[in-house]
Amino acid sequence: MAAIPDSAATMGALAERFGEVRQRTLELCAPLQIEDYCVQSMPDASPMKWHLAHTTWFFEQFIVKPRVPQYLSPNPRYEYLFNSYYQGAGPMHTRAERGLITRPTVAEVMSYRTHVDAHLLTLLASDADAALADLVVLGLHHEQQHQELMLTDLKHAFSRNPLLPAYRELRDAAARPAAGLAPPLRFVDFGGGIHEIGLPADPRQRGFCFDNETPRHRTYVAPFSLATRLTTNDEYRQFVRDGGYRRADLWLSDGWATVCAEQWQQPLYWAADQQSEFTLGGVQSVDPNAPVCHLSFFEADAFARWARARLPSEAEWEVAAAAQPSHGNFYETGALHPRVSVRDSGIAQLFGDVWEWTASPYVGYPGYRPLPGTLGEYNGKFMCSQWVLRGGSCVTPADHIRPTYRNFFYPHMRWQFSGIRLARDAT
Amino acid sequence: MAAIPDSAATMGALAERFGEVRQRTLELCAPLQIEDYCVQSMPDASPMKWHLAHTTWFFEQFIVKPRVPQYLSPNPRYEYLFNSYYQGAGPMHTRAERGLITRPTVAEVMSYRTHVDAHLLTLLASDADAALADLVVLGLHHEQQHQELMLTDLKHAFSRNPLLPAYRELRDAAARPAAGLAPPLRFVDFGGGIHEIGLPADPRQRGFCFDNETPRHRTYVAPFSLATRLTTNDEYRQFVRDGGYRRADLWLSDGWATVCAEQWQQPLYWAADQQSEFTLGGVQSVDPNAPVCHLSFFEADAFARWARARLPSEAEWEVAAAAQPSHGNFYETGALHPRVSVRDSGIAQLFGDVWEWTASPYVGYPGYRPLPGTLGEYNGKFMCSQWVLRGGSCVTPADHIRPTYRNFFYPHMRWQFSGIRLARDAT
Amino acid sequence: MAAIPDSAATMGALAERFGEVRQRTLELCAPLQIEDYCVQSMPDASPMKWHLAHTTWFFEQFIVKPRVPQYLSPNPRYEYLFNSYYQGAGPMHTRAERGLITRPTVAEVMSYRTHVDAHLLTLLASDADAALADLVVLGLHHEQQHQELMLTDLKHAFSRNPLLPAYRELRDAAARPAAGLAPPLRFVDFGGGIHEIGLPADPRQRGFCFDNETPRHRTYVAPFSLATRLTTNDEYRQFVRDGGYRRADLWLSDGWATVCAEQWQQPLYWAADQQSEFTLGGVQSVDPNAPVCHLSFFEADAFARWARARLPSEAEWEVAAAAQPSHGNFYETGALHPRVSVRDSGIAQLFGDVWEWTASPYVGYPGYRPLPGTLGEYNGKFMCSQWVLRGGSCVTPADHIRPTYRNFFYPHMRWQFSGIRLARDAT
Amino acid sequence: MAAIPDSAATMGALAERFGEVRQRTLELCAPLQIEDYCVQSMPDASPMKWHLAHTTWFFEQFIVKPRVPQYLSPNPRYEYLFNSYYQGAGPMHTRAERGLITRPTVAEVMSYRTHVDAHLLTLLASDADAALADLVVLGLHHEQQHQELMLTDLKHAFSRNPLLPAYRELRDAAARPAAGLAPPLRFVDFGGGIHEIGLPADPRQRGFCFDNETPRHRTYVAPFSLATRLTTNDEYRQFVRDGGYRRADLWLSDGWATVCAEQWQQPLYWAADQQSEFTLGGVQSVDPNAPVCHLSFFEADAFARWARARLPSEAEWEVAAAAQPSHGNFYETGALHPRVSVRDSGIAQLFGDVWEWTASPYVGYPGYRPLPGTLGEYNGKFMCSQWVLRGGSCVTPADHIRPTYRNFFYPHMRWQFSGIRLARDAT
Repeated sequence: MAAIPDSAATMGALAERFGEVRQRTLELCAPLQIEDYCVQSMPDASPMKWHLAHTTWFFEQFIVKPRVPQYLSPNPRYEYLFNSYYQGAGPMHTRAERGLITRPTVAEVMSYRTHVDAHLLTLLASDADAALADLVVLGLHHEQQHQELMLTDLKHAFSRNPLLPAYRELRDAAARPAAGLAPPLRFVDFGGGIHEIGLPADPRQRGFCFDNETPRHRTYVAPFSLATRLTTNDEYRQFVRDGGYRRADLWLSDGWATVCAEQWQQPLYWAADQQSEFTLGGVQSVDPNAPVCHLSFFEADAFARWARARLPSEAEWEVAAAAQPSHGNFYETGALHPRVSVRDSGIAQLFGDVWEWTASPYVGYPGYRPLPGTLGEYNGKFMCSQWVLRGGSCVTPADHIRPTYRNFFYPHMRWQFSGIRLARDAT
Repeated sequence: MAAIPDSAATMGALAERFGEVRQRTLELCAPLQIEDYCVQSMPDASPMKWHLAHTTWFFEQFIVKPRVPQYLSPNPRYEYLFNSYYQGAGPMHTRAERGLITRPTVAEVMSYRTHVDAHLLTLLASDADAALADLVVLGLHHEQQHQELMLTDLKHAFSRNPLLPAYRELRDAAARPAAGLAPPLRFVDFGGGIHEIGLPADPRQRGFCFDNETPRHRTYVAPFSLATRLTTNDEYRQFVRDGGYRRADLWLSDGWATVCAEQWQQPLYWAADQQSEFTLGGVQSVDPNAPVCHLSFFEADAFARWARARLPSEAEWEVAAAAQPSHGNFYETGALHPRVSVRDSGIAQLFGDVWEWTASPYVGYPGYRPLPGTLGEYNGKFMCSQWVLRGGSCVTPADHIRPTYRNFFYPHMRWQFSGIRLARDAT
Repeated sequence: MAAIPDSAATMGALAERFGEVRQRTLELCAPLQIEDYCVQSMPDASPMKWHLAHTTWFFEQFIVKPRVPQYLSPNPRYEYLFNSYYQGAGPMHTRAERGLITRPTVAEVMSYRTHVDAHLLTLLASDADAALADLVVLGLHHEQQHQELMLTDLKHAFSRNPLLPAYRELRDAAARPAAGLAPPLRFVDFGGGIHEIGLPADPRQRGFCFDNETPRHRTYVAPFSLATRLTTNDEYRQFVRDGGYRRADLWLSDGWATVCAEQWQQPLYWAADQQSEFTLGGVQSVDPNAPVCHLSFFEADAFARWARARLPSEAEWEVAAAAQPSHGNFYETGALHPRVSVRDSGIAQLFGDVWEWTASPYVGYPGYRPLPGTLGEYNGKFMCSQWVLRGGSCVTPADHIRPTYRNFFYPHMRWQFSGIRLARDAT
Repeated sequence: MAAIPDSAATMGALAERFGEVRQRTLELCAPLQIEDYCVQSMPDASPMKWHLAHTTWFFEQFIVKPRVPQYLSPNPRYEYLFNSYYQGAGPMHTRAERGLITRPTVAEVMSYRTHVDAHLLTLLASDADAALADLVVLGLHHEQQHQELMLTDLKHAFSRNPLLPAYRELRDAAARPAAGLAPPLRFVDFGGGIHEIGLPADPRQRGFCFDNETPRHRTYVAPFSLATRLTTNDEYRQFVRDGGYRRADLWLSDGWATVCAEQWQQPLYWAADQQSEFTLGGVQSVDPNAPVCHLSFFEADAFARWARARLPSEAEWEVAAAAQPSHGNFYETGALHPRVSVRDSGIAQLFGDVWEWTASPYVGYPGYRPLPGTLGEYNGKFMCSQWVLRGGSCVTPADHIRPTYRNFFYPHMRWQFSGIRLARDAT
């Protein structure tokens, strides 16, 4: 699949791209039963049906309604039902109650998608300008974020069912123990100095990015070392067996409180015996050589302390990643699970497999300005108490990621495909 | 529909009856979409799919498994998933998480029903004895209780959807304001003395009943008066307008705490303006002459105090009801909503329309013995902090009710079709 | 100490009685440090300082203010601070925050007591009438209830301190294992029939009682048997060792939920090894022959089921108790802990030692009318979800109790001195 | 009062300093009644008695016990009771239940202080070495932190008492509206570039500091402007009146959720009419020219957005403060409340008056190493989800503060003396 064209691309290409991304969302749903679309297994997750509708609402709200005079929605209440968190767009349904909405049915939501798609394609064919193209591109990246969330949310929902159903068979036996061994863990040194990270605020100077990746700015980075691959299940299992979840001295205070309150004893989807784990392909053996996954920041941080290392800052990560192509085990491999590193030189697995927790709290870059208007709520208002993750995961669309991409979650959250890359101060 | 035959009836008639009751459950589902089967809108309510499976589990657990050697369940985990609260039958799924189970699908649950039905009909055709017949009859009454719960739970779930969908059109305009006026409220006097209430513990001396209706026993009742009809919406609206929800002196202490915490201001499904209400037929005008419905015990008790009356004890209610035929606005009328009283002599509406809160805490009758074994958990263990309701409602199957029937709910619960009949001490 | 004189007594005697009861409250505080007066260890309990002030507020609010023109309170905010739950007397401080009030100081509260006492004694000397006397007597019984609560609340607070301090040395070694053996447990039969229980509503026909003891009324009681003494620690320990806290079948559903949520494994103040318990005299050995104490209704009910018995109804209890003198191990013995039964004939320990949970939910008697006005909130509004206890305890003032006395608590509560007397249906 | 001597100072001077700081703690208690020592008004606050004991425990645990063979504690359970959060020092009492401990009494805690003081002074006189001196100095700074907390916690406790008692009369009318006007708000520009902030990790290269102020390190700071004084009550009141607490667009997402859940409408101690506020001197008028105080980070951040400015980063703050003497309205002025700025040139009020929220999440500096052993828990484990505040407040001891000093609290917390200094990107 080609990269998302930026706003300078022709409208024809954009229309084609629009069709591709919207279709991908539907393909994700192919293995589902109607019953699977409605469930919300926790307030942080959303039903599939809601994702399908909300990504449509985004195009309707920010593009179709402002540009199509006398636009008629299939149902005026969808504005309320499918707004996620945009206070500027009016009141919204309670997040924790998204699973209570049995109607509209899946078929009605599909019809809503078709309805909005038709209007949007008409706009692209007739009323196109750069501003429109920018918004459509933003909407497509928004939809890609939800494609990833659909898989993480579905995995969580299935994990709460005692029957532990599988989403589908995972391709090329990716998640099953392979003969492959992980290469030995080494650290690569990077020099210190002033670096520039992020992307220019001016869109004419770059391709698409989210506002939180801007502006490009100087930062001082001290010399550091970065692990050559992700932390494996085997390494994490040693931490568990060494009493990692029972030693308060390894944890941040908030982390230890969470361990005690939630009675954490292993990663989210591991069985108590640490031998098997729940995956999108059902219960499978834990591959000791594959990257450990579904960890909170608290666990990643505690493991790093146990390993006499630390997590990298996001500037360190970006300095290392800027020189690399953004290739890796993304959604398109079909694995839908982290895989054993196959590369034994340089820094491997920076992209794909698992989101890498950094040591950086999620705040705006110096000089950061949110998008104007209601879309300014997209990223900026979440810059508090969350931590930056980098690099994408095995359920991220490959053309959605960039070296400058900043993902963010609260430190206790584990349902994302999140793992560990170690770092150290250079000696 | 004929009354459920007791255990002395022929097995052929019982098999036929079994088919009828099981079929009725499916008929209730006819207006539903697949999406409607899975939602759990609060811990007290259950998804339709769960009701369909649990009523089947009941027959499987208590009849088929003990009697069919080498019985094979469609899925051994159903034993865990669809056990409601029978500790003696093994561990069970968390009640509040019934809505998280997207699989088995509705089709699979229907197949589970067919599977168990076939086994049960085989048993009835071959292995029949009085004990078997007793258990089947119990299972059918159990299923009828869940038929009512399906409608109350579905109404609650639909009410939490901002689209306020209707279950189906209500028959004969039952819930819409009619020309009919409620007859004037009068009180009928009853003399005091020793009365017998309940039914004999020995099943040979009676037809089917639940264990909590036994034993028949003596109780002393002082002279009392009973209202000739149910309290109407108009009467309750006067209470609301008189500040009923703002006057602490009218409420029990626990009730006032609930009013404040939940910010109650009117019955559960009324709109804030007290002019319309949510029904199984969607939003409709409040008929001032129809019985008020969906009240908690706290509200019924506060209204009675405001009206310078009180609620009847269950003994008083039964003394009055024992002399009457058990006719009324039950499920079979198709109204699915309480209707204006059409009778202006004697005590009207004792059966059907709304469950009538009594002033009696739900405890065992003197000499009460629960059923032996795990089925002893059916009723007995709930005899704490709940209150007795009598008479059935517009969503109760007509042949499920008896003058001795004791329903029970916690005093804050409002999602049942529950209302008010006033009583007074005789002057 | 003489019985509290009723309203017909002379005012002089009443003034003297007033002085005695008020003084008793202060005597209870003698072993305390200033620091002990302020703590609130749970919302159900209150600080000593609050008890001292609230009992004073009661006299001020219901007697002094209405009768003394231009009465000046030491602080007008006391009206708000020391109102317990009388909505009719105006707004009140949040119950759960009584422990946050460091001022007024203990000395200021003592001064408040003196201030109100002086006004009240002046009234008794000058303005006395029967209505005044009735209110004073009510206030003294109210104060006696709080004397008991002071000891139960203090015991709870001390139990939450890891240092486990003692209130004072217990008199005559009452709580320590004695040579005395409990007499064997037997059951005494009582015949059935119509009995009258309670006291006349008309105060001219009786001495003082609370409104919830009225009216005297007929009730039908079936033949029953009553245990000759209270259940002992040894008997209860057998229940514990037989897995009583792990067998769901023994418990009411709400009780089992409480056992699981609170992880109950023994009575409130027992150590985990069941060999020692916390008492007002500090940690002491559990005397196997003494009555078990500090049980919830749930535990009492589960024990009775395990013992193939049941709890008595309050009518049964009163029928048995009516024939007995109200003697027993009350506050005045100084034991402050239940003692081994020393009597081996008839029904022992009906009064004192521990409050006896009955099988009767706390509701109004037929024809019950609360006191008029704000004092009507004293008892009536609590008639929901609580259970009746009878007989008083080792911390109840001896002259506060009557055979008709109805105490009431929620079924999960254990911090009162509450225990078990078994009953059975007569064979 | 002289600055705390560093570990190179003579032991005699250190012993004298020890006496001074310990005595200051007692002086803070002079206006208190015994009743005031025991209350805990929320889990974040602690009783005065606990502060008195915990600061003593710190010396006992980290100095006396390791160095005094056969040391006898007044009570071995104090180790458990007065440990705050040092997992390495063993189990500890539940934080939220510190207010339940009526014993030891205040007198016993004072005696505990004397006991430990004597041992510590003996050590200083006999066993002194540099390591001992370092620990004593750390313990004194620890005690100074608790001196500030005692006043913030006491203010909170008094504020929850409907009587709103005063701690003492505030010196020189400091908190009352003065004729003084705040100077006009201006911004001063600072150039960008690499700066060094923090202090050297090697203690031989500096005086005392906490581990979280180290190491001194390079950071890149872009050009910025800083407000010449703190934000005033008048300015903040304009924000309130402009609907600041009702406009979601001004708030971080977590902040808005807090505003809604807690129903915030003004700073913590302001009355609803915004004209008066609760101070340590009781209720007083809000001085429009004085700095606004008792704001959460959420409020500071929302105000800055409303004012078209932002909060400074901690590096920006330290760059500006490094050039200034650390003078200001500290505890020693006796005001115990922020005062109107009297200086109209340069950057005023950087030190004292109110802690200034920065835009910097609290994390370790690059290369940060916690103290070895259990004392490593002092600061490091809290580096998550909190924000840095700088500059000290009117209840901070003057000699406790430094330009490099990093305080930290969660973003919703308001009970500290915390306020706002605005910053902007340089134009």
